[in-house]
Amino acid sequence: MKVATFLTDFGVLDGYVAQMKGVILSQVDARLVDITHDVASYDIRGGAFILQSVVPFFPVGTVHVAVVDPGVGTDRRGIIVITRDYVLVGPDNGLLIPAARRLKDFTVYEISDEKNMHSSVSSTFHGRDIFAPVVARILKGVPFDELGFPVEQFVDLDFGQAEMTPSGIVGQVIHVDRFGNVITNITGVQLVDVVSFDTKIRVGIGNRSMNVPFVRSYGYVKKGMMLGTIGGSGYFEIGVNQGNAARKLQVTSGDVLWVAVG
Amino acid sequence: MKVATFLTDFGVLDGYVAQMKGVILSQVDARLVDITHDVASYDIRGGAFILQSVVPFFPVGTVHVAVVDPGVGTDRRGIIVITRDYVLVGPDNGLLIPAARRLKDFTVYEISDEKNMHSSVSSTFHGRDIFAPVVARILKGVPFDELGFPVEQFVDLDFGQAEMTPSGIVGQVIHVDRFGNVITNITGVQLVDVVSFDTKIRVGIGNRSMNVPFVRSYGYVKKGMMLGTIGGSGYFEIGVNQGNAARKLQVTSGDVLWVAVG
Amino acid sequence: MKVATFLTDFGVLDGYVAQMKGVILSQVDARLVDITHDVASYDIRGGAFILQSVVPFFPVGTVHVAVVDPGVGTDRRGIIVITRDYVLVGPDNGLLIPAARRLKDFTVYEISDEKNMHSSVSSTFHGRDIFAPVVARILKGVPFDELGFPVEQFVDLDFGQAEMTPSGIVGQVIHVDRFGNVITNITGVQLVDVVSFDTKIRVGIGNRSMNVPFVRSYGYVKKGMMLGTIGGSGYFEIGVNQGNAARKLQVTSGDVLWVAVG
Repeated sequence: MKVATFLTDFGVLDGYVAQMKGVILSQVDARLVDITHDVASYDIRGGAFILQSVVPFFPVGTVHVAVVDPGVGTDRRGIIVITRDYVLVGPDNGLLIPAARRLKDFTVYEISDEKNMHSSVSSTFHGRDIFAPVVARILKGVPFDELGFPVEQFVDLDFGQAEMTPSGIVGQVIHVDRFGNVITNITGVQLVDVVSFDTKIRVGIGNRSMNVPFVRSYGYVKKGMMLGTIGGSGYFEIGVNQGNAARKLQVTSGDVLWVAVG
Repeated sequence: MKVATFLTDFGVLDGYVAQMKGVILSQVDARLVDITHDVASYDIRGGAFILQSVVPFFPVGTVHVAVVDPGVGTDRRGIIVITRDYVLVGPDNGLLIPAARRLKDFTVYEISDEKNMHSSVSSTFHGRDIFAPVVARILKGVPFDELGFPVEQFVDLDFGQAEMTPSGIVGQVIHVDRFGNVITNITGVQLVDVVSFDTKIRVGIGNRSMNVPFVRSYGYVKKGMMLGTIGGSGYFEIGVNQGNAARKLQVTSGDVLWVAVG
Repeated sequence: MKVATFLTDFGVLDGYVAQMKGVILSQVDARLVDITHDVASYDIRGGAFILQSVVPFFPVGTVHVAVVDPGVGTDRRGIIVITRDYVLVGPDNGLLIPAARRLKDFTVYEISDEKNMHSSVSSTFHGRDIFAPVVARILKGVPFDELGFPVEQFVDLDFGQAEMTPSGIVGQVIHVDRFGNVITNITGVQLVDVVSFDTKIRVGIGNRSMNVPFVRSYGYVKKGMMLGTIGGSGYFEIGVNQGNAARKLQVTSGDVLWVAVG
């Protein structure tokens, strides 16, 4: 079984993603799985977060193609990131890097092979004309050396690391999901070192702070109540049971957030 | 061919559904078909309606997994519902039951097998960590007795039954679809007993009532005109040809509605 | 490998598309690829544009089913359009025709075979009860003559042709994509005959006109700047780098637009 996944900011209205899939299926039979196409337009950081949260759950050998690409058609490079178990394909703008780091050791290739390209390469749609043909060729087993060459340099991106300070852990909001849950870069591992489940913890965002129950899951508090928990990606998140925490707190991606210790 | 379908309120933004699919494909090759991920957050009833309308159209042997789950992480159970032709997997909160009833005889198993679980079961994402592994194991042919045990009790849910009264049929709005069509729990069978196609019928909602043509399909009335018809699921529905009836009537799921007889 | 694609205005909320897919998979194993289900309700022209932009990228033999169908349940016919490499299935309302023309020579069949139909044909859901069974039978290799019969007449639809006038090329907006890019019926071939990349061109819409750089792709201008380019479908389009041109220009599908020559 060959599998490819797709993450873009193309939306689904215009059939752009379907064009990519058509190009791939024209060359190779594969299971095609959408991650999302609703990344906010040009939001590389948001796309990178979602990508890294999904990639490790797929079968070994899966090729993940991701396109959030404000620089399309300029001289930004296309890259292939090779990890032990997966291959990532997309623009060299940081989008693929958090996923690559989560997958541990990785090698970056710059895409160079002109033979990959769809017969009429458009300069506005590399997803279809460059990345999809590369994905198809990888799934067919074409060696990476025929698709590009290894490079040392690439555009990096990370979500920062939450820091331990004497008064608490200081982190950042890295994603607000569709339920309005506020996901931070404080890891579950960092947090459970200093606070215990089923206690109240003190959380600050901007110039507000509040006590919230720290629980194993949303269902542990009443409907409408705020809570802190470790989410499905292993990060500390703040939510409202069956409600929207981001709206309530007026929080957005990038905001600083702290959890008091002791 | 193995087939699994997916119905959730996760949306597609965050890649949660893709994580479930990755877990399944890591264990078994299967066709994965989305029903919808746009069920209103935590709307068990709305999800249950859509699920029951879709399940019987799939190949025998299809496993349908549905997750609309405000109680995730509490002690609500996960269940497997076994019917003659299909298997349903999801939380024990009523979501699966209207589909099960439509499929006639069914047996409910409580999920118990810890071996199913993804190595790091998160307490907030049972879709990925419990239900998806169970789906994969069912598709691989693991006997149900290795996944759980039969139970007599489960959380029930129904859409009520429209009632015949001397003055008419009294029912309820069970779903408003994306076109604004108002779908009721009055069945086509109940209705055609008492009214005829191509006549005017009297319909009441709240304290309003009106005469609408009862026709075989939307195209039988002019653009912008209201009508009653039997929809694709076999239920009586009120629509506006190329317009939005729910908005026009200010109707929402759960509202009472009657059709006069004679 | 058998492939079917799907384009509708059904949205994904209600599971209508999943019902179609279930009907097909019940008869034949195939890769099922969504083009889009977010065509504006009843917007045949918008659906036709997206369909024609996608079809040629799929493997030879793909069956494309498209349903944007305000006339469902009336006596509008269902048709099969046979081209050298693909088959299109849908209502006879023009939706399939621009795609058929792009694929060159084509033959139109009227669907007639009652044996195709799902056992209980609903008069409101031909997508599931007529078109999906026809798609399944085509994928199984049933001869077209068993599904219908050739007809000379069909409902036509085109996007008009941009015209060369002494003062410039006069065309029309045929689509606004999800980024707000304004796609016209002026072809790249027409345009590059009279203007050169990396020059300023004069563009008029309504009673406004402006000079915009004509570039190979969006990344060639600064963020927020307007530009003209040849889009991924080969048509002239106006965009704003990382912005929304349609909103800025108050432009919508059908508006007249010109590009000055010289």
